[in-house]
Amino acid sequence: MQTFSYEQLHRFTYGMLVKIGCPEVDAKIGTDVLLSADLRGVDSHGVARLSGYVRLWEKGRINAKPNVHVSYETPSTAVVDGDSGLGLVVAPFAMKVAIEKAKNVGTGWVSVKNSNHYGIAGYHSMMALEHDMIGISLTNASPLVAPTFSRERLLGTNPISVAIPAKNQPPFVADMATTTAANGKLEILQRKGLDTPTGWVQDKDGSPTTSANGVKDGGALLPLGGDREHGSHKGYALGAIVDIFSAVLSGANYGPWVPPFVAFLDPLPNLVGEGIGHFFGAMRVDAFRPADEFKSHMDNWIERFRSAETTPGNEKVLIPGDPERELEAIRMKEGIPLLDPVVKDLTELGERFGVKF
Amino acid sequence: MQTFSYEQLHRFTYGMLVKIGCPEVDAKIGTDVLLSADLRGVDSHGVARLSGYVRLWEKGRINAKPNVHVSYETPSTAVVDGDSGLGLVVAPFAMKVAIEKAKNVGTGWVSVKNSNHYGIAGYHSMMALEHDMIGISLTNASPLVAPTFSRERLLGTNPISVAIPAKNQPPFVADMATTTAANGKLEILQRKGLDTPTGWVQDKDGSPTTSANGVKDGGALLPLGGDREHGSHKGYALGAIVDIFSAVLSGANYGPWVPPFVAFLDPLPNLVGEGIGHFFGAMRVDAFRPADEFKSHMDNWIERFRSAETTPGNEKVLIPGDPERELEAIRMKEGIPLLDPVVKDLTELGERFGVKF
Repeated sequence: MQTFSYEQLHRFTYGMLVKIGCPEVDAKIGTDVLLSADLRGVDSHGVARLSGYVRLWEKGRINAKPNVHVSYETPSTAVVDGDSGLGLVVAPFAMKVAIEKAKNVGTGWVSVKNSNHYGIAGYHSMMALEHDMIGISLTNASPLVAPTFSRERLLGTNPISVAIPAKNQPPFVADMATTTAANGKLEILQRKGLDTPTGWVQDKDGSPTTSANGVKDGGALLPLGGDREHGSHKGYALGAIVDIFSAVLSGANYGPWVPPFVAFLDPLPNLVGEGIGHFFGAMRVDAFRPADEFKSHMDNWIERFRSAETTPGNEKVLIPGDPERELEAIRMKEGIPLLDPVVKDLTELGERFGVKF
Repeated sequence: MQTFSYEQLHRFTYGMLVKIGCPEVDAKIGTDVLLSADLRGVDSHGVARLSGYVRLWEKGRINAKPNVHVSYETPSTAVVDGDSGLGLVVAPFAMKVAIEKAKNVGTGWVSVKNSNHYGIAGYHSMMALEHDMIGISLTNASPLVAPTFSRERLLGTNPISVAIPAKNQPPFVADMATTTAANGKLEILQRKGLDTPTGWVQDKDGSPTTSANGVKDGGALLPLGGDREHGSHKGYALGAIVDIFSAVLSGANYGPWVPPFVAFLDPLPNLVGEGIGHFFGAMRVDAFRPADEFKSHMDNWIERFRSAETTPGNEKVLIPGDPERELEAIRMKEGIPLLDPVVKDLTELGERFGVKF
């Protein structure tokens, strides 16, 4: 494990994105999005993925100079065509479209096709906050998750992020996979040689397992809830809604057809759409009531929940977004720790492209 | 257990609602909504609740002749003031406003204050289907649920319903509490003297319990996920989002201030808003792509998921809405079974008001 400053990692990532041909403005925003994951502790979606994006670009599956554009629209909706661009760049473009529409008619809703992995869901939803809007960010992803009663992997970890502004309190920011646990947590347990709790994984035959290698060995992640008795049909429905809003509305690939994020696996033949899909929403809070009134009540909501009496052994009730915000402050000051294999991978990447890590 | 035809129960419920002073058109829609729960198997939200509504009306907490109206709006949003009306009547009014806005600008989003319990969430979201729109229906409810690490009940079971039209396939209709299990399931286990699975309930000290009386005895329902290790912070975040969209946007009561549905408990002093809150959305699918194209892809999505290989011991993968639709067909034909205490309660209610059960 080595620690790097935010500036070091930002300079390197920006340099790499320019090197593969991204316009400077795209390299800047793409780097901001990618590193936001490292700062907020979603390490699996941060700079550790940079070489994955580069390999997809080398395969011709990511377009470094895309013509990202609105391909269809109404006053409150749009479809954005990502032109195979980096999701890290396509997503902020689409979220801006949603925000502009909200300025005009109260809300904006944008479904995106022909994109790639968009990094951390919460970056995009949080773009709405400075405009006194509620932001929503959803994306589908490569199939790793088995619906309730399914042996097959048909859904991605399909996250939901919702960011809501407050007044004196920091904002409410939910950002969660619709599975019991994200794939990154399995990787941590694998490295430590530990088992998973129940309800996280099934094996290749579709039986419950606590092996942290369960997904690697042909099994699947389980929807939030874990099994039918604990509500997995609800996690499955949530993941399905994310898939449909992101891809069936836009014309992207859905379900098992979502192209794999890794360059060594080819997309399925006979695709049903273009690239992967996202969905964004922006709602002006003053399209419902005066913004100041809304934000004061959010403060009251947050203060009441944060001061609730706790269960034995726990110090306080958290507000969604609290842990990530606290970690961001620490990592901005003390640096971002990277695992040795990630450092090696980035060093090699830098050498190969002549960008100093 | 006795079985009654849909027509019998409809006639009685309609008669009762007219008796307490509802205009005929309101009594008709209110009855349709209430009985939709019985048909679809959400028995705890159906005719079994009729006497609860009547008692709230007797206490002056439900207004049988409300002036339900839009109190604020933009092209894509509105706030509806329910004027303390039956949620069964206020909710369809608000959903119609959302649908009209979607016709004009692509989508419509309506937050509701000053309402009461709105019955089954799925009735309202499904109103969008015949217009080739996606329907969304959320509501907050009396506090029975403890957020992760909280000993206190701060949220309701706050359901999420999303209805999505298909072409030749029946629609996708998710309708779920954001808890591991709904309160109605606890009541079934109580009657049978059985324990709950893990992850459903905590006791009054905030410790996990499998007692089906846990909530009755001062404990709480748990958010979807059950505990932190199994993702309860996600269920908590979902329930919180439903609460904020339904009540902080509209000016209704939120969190622990949501008034109890039962007449024998008074609302808290110093309320933070008016009544309970709901939130509705309608999105025209052709605000994103041609409706026929969208619906054909939905058919493909549904067929692929329904034909997936299954886990051991399970016959097929279900699409959200399948079980409720199948039960609705059966109950429409064979009648609706009611438990003896419910029959007794309704008989007494009818006698008291001179409406034949």
